[in-house]
Amino acid sequence: MTRLSELGESHVLERILSHNHSGSQVIIGPGDDAAVTAVDGNLVSTADMLVENEDFTRAWLDWGRLGIKAAAQNLSDVCVMGARPHGLLVSLAVPNSTEIEDLEALFAGIVAEAGRAGEDLGCEIPIIGGDLSSSGLIVIAITALGTVADHAAITRSDARPGDSIYLAGTIGRAAAGLDLLFAGVDGDAELDESLTSLITTQLAPQPDYAAVLQMGAASAMIDVSDGLSTDVGRIASASGVHARIDRASLQELIDELLPAARHLAGAIEGAQSGEGTAQAAAEAEELALAWVLNGGEDHGFVASSAQFDRPPVGWRRIGEMRVGNGVSLDGAPVPTSGFSHFGK
Amino acid sequence: MTRLSELGESHVLERILSHNHSGSQVIIGPGDDAAVTAVDGNLVSTADMLVENEDFTRAWLDWGRLGIKAAAQNLSDVCVMGARPHGLLVSLAVPNSTEIEDLEALFAGIVAEAGRAGEDLGCEIPIIGGDLSSSGLIVIAITALGTVADHAAITRSDARPGDSIYLAGTIGRAAAGLDLLFAGVDGDAELDESLTSLITTQLAPQPDYAAVLQMGAASAMIDVSDGLSTDVGRIASASGVHARIDRASLQELIDELLPAARHLAGAIEGAQSGEGTAQAAAEAEELALAWVLNGGEDHGFVASSAQFDRPPVGWRRIGEMRVGNGVSLDGAPVPTSGFSHFGK
Repeated sequence: MTRLSELGESHVLERILSHNHSGSQVIIGPGDDAAVTAVDGNLVSTADMLVENEDFTRAWLDWGRLGIKAAAQNLSDVCVMGARPHGLLVSLAVPNSTEIEDLEALFAGIVAEAGRAGEDLGCEIPIIGGDLSSSGLIVIAITALGTVADHAAITRSDARPGDSIYLAGTIGRAAAGLDLLFAGVDGDAELDESLTSLITTQLAPQPDYAAVLQMGAASAMIDVSDGLSTDVGRIASASGVHARIDRASLQELIDELLPAARHLAGAIEGAQSGEGTAQAAAEAEELALAWVLNGGEDHGFVASSAQFDRPPVGWRRIGEMRVGNGVSLDGAPVPTSGFSHFGK
Repeated sequence: MTRLSELGESHVLERILSHNHSGSQVIIGPGDDAAVTAVDGNLVSTADMLVENEDFTRAWLDWGRLGIKAAAQNLSDVCVMGARPHGLLVSLAVPNSTEIEDLEALFAGIVAEAGRAGEDLGCEIPIIGGDLSSSGLIVIAITALGTVADHAAITRSDARPGDSIYLAGTIGRAAAGLDLLFAGVDGDAELDESLTSLITTQLAPQPDYAAVLQMGAASAMIDVSDGLSTDVGRIASASGVHARIDRASLQELIDELLPAARHLAGAIEGAQSGEGTAQAAAEAEELALAWVLNGGEDHGFVASSAQFDRPPVGWRRIGEMRVGNGVSLDGAPVPTSGFSHFGK
């Protein structure tokens, strides 16, 4: 157990970057003023932060999973542009008292998730740079870079009326996991595996990167990070279309979340009351639906495309684009406000 | 006066990015999952963070200057690779209570410094992406991207014995400014302009980007961010050479810092004592030398190159590379430990 304060900064960087495997695109890797890499095509770049007490708390902190989450949320953004990830820059601010082993676990998590994405997408995704600072709060800021052939980038703005809406991966699971964590159930040894797996999705989401390759040329694509309604709403708004979601297509996702919804309803209301079971069931269904519609962070992907006879592997059809604007569920308008770091 | 908590995140992003001017290389700008930009040559990338209470304090906080500093420390790293800056990604974590006007000032500072660098280097440097988070502490994480022609990148590792060592810009001023800030003199209305300008260098350094173009092909180049001895030591270590610094070449830089050194010596020892003026002068000289040798953050540039008959515009010769290792001042070994975020 060695704290960062006992090591020099360069020693720390050497140790944590030893987890990293250099990609063939790397001409000058970490250690100079900047990295130099060979790029093929247009550059795709995105940056996302995870901040202690905002995106995670010390109580749930698992450094390895935090690394997975930080990498996944950035890699998924590159991936849904139809791009091939190229490398990561990892800037990290941690307290002086942090143990080097925890930092190594964090970087191992980042490298593992980059490796998983690289396997899915057939590319190497090295850590090519970054920064390490002392701080009162843990902050992880990752920039993910990628490349895409000319005119091949998939944006949010080209969905057309008549397109089908497809979903890859899951939605709602991370939000359910977060509510379980807030309810303090994660220390419960009796907790059903189906519930602990929701917590895992919150702490270490595993986007289905390979699904993007299966989809091929979509008219629009987005990473569901702030919730289905919000993110489909972004495609609708950018493309000038109405997104009609088919509730029946979400039923399987809702049903998977019912045990967690019932668990939380039970925790809140107490199981002592025999009455109102029909009402309790309706409330659980409503909560599960809310997770599916408004919960981000699983990093499921939503795409619009001309309808396939059979959805590509990893995708399910969940609705269609129509003339108009906004988002509806079986025709009833759905708010698209979603998650904001600053209220509203 | 509007606090972020009264606005939605997307509204905040819209307002602050209105300062930004899109470059001609931008194919898809901020607002999608990732940006897409056209790159010409190899990609150069670097990331650096500024963390509250580590790199600046609330007491000295000037949001516009903080933006300049954050941009400058990243752009200078791209620049000393011999690269042309391409764009910035700005991830920002700030308290909910932050006023939108302060955030706009921060971004205006970033855009102003990127504009200054772009004018020096003949390129456009737009903000192409980023993230905005709520946080208990202010954290600014910038990734700077650039491009460089094949084999044209200037590293730290190709300095040769016999090369001259050149310096562009200043060293020591930001460190002197920091010590003045720590001494609490910045509220002093009587403070001499030469002293307040040192504080400005600490809060808003202005690297001489154009000097890099004047130098042309150096054998090695580095941004002095952790101090001359440390950063020249990095070239020496990476290149397997000894860097001999000529003290006389630094005298002008030392002399410029003497008023600040005397001011601080006076503040500490009191001006009451008439004795020991020779000793006081020696102490001031020693403090000024320490700033010049060990103070980073002006973002001066050091390059090694075959000796010029006359140094390129903006550069001064400060020593030469020899066979051996380490750094010396007029032959006396100089420690190269420099600044570390984690002690040691």
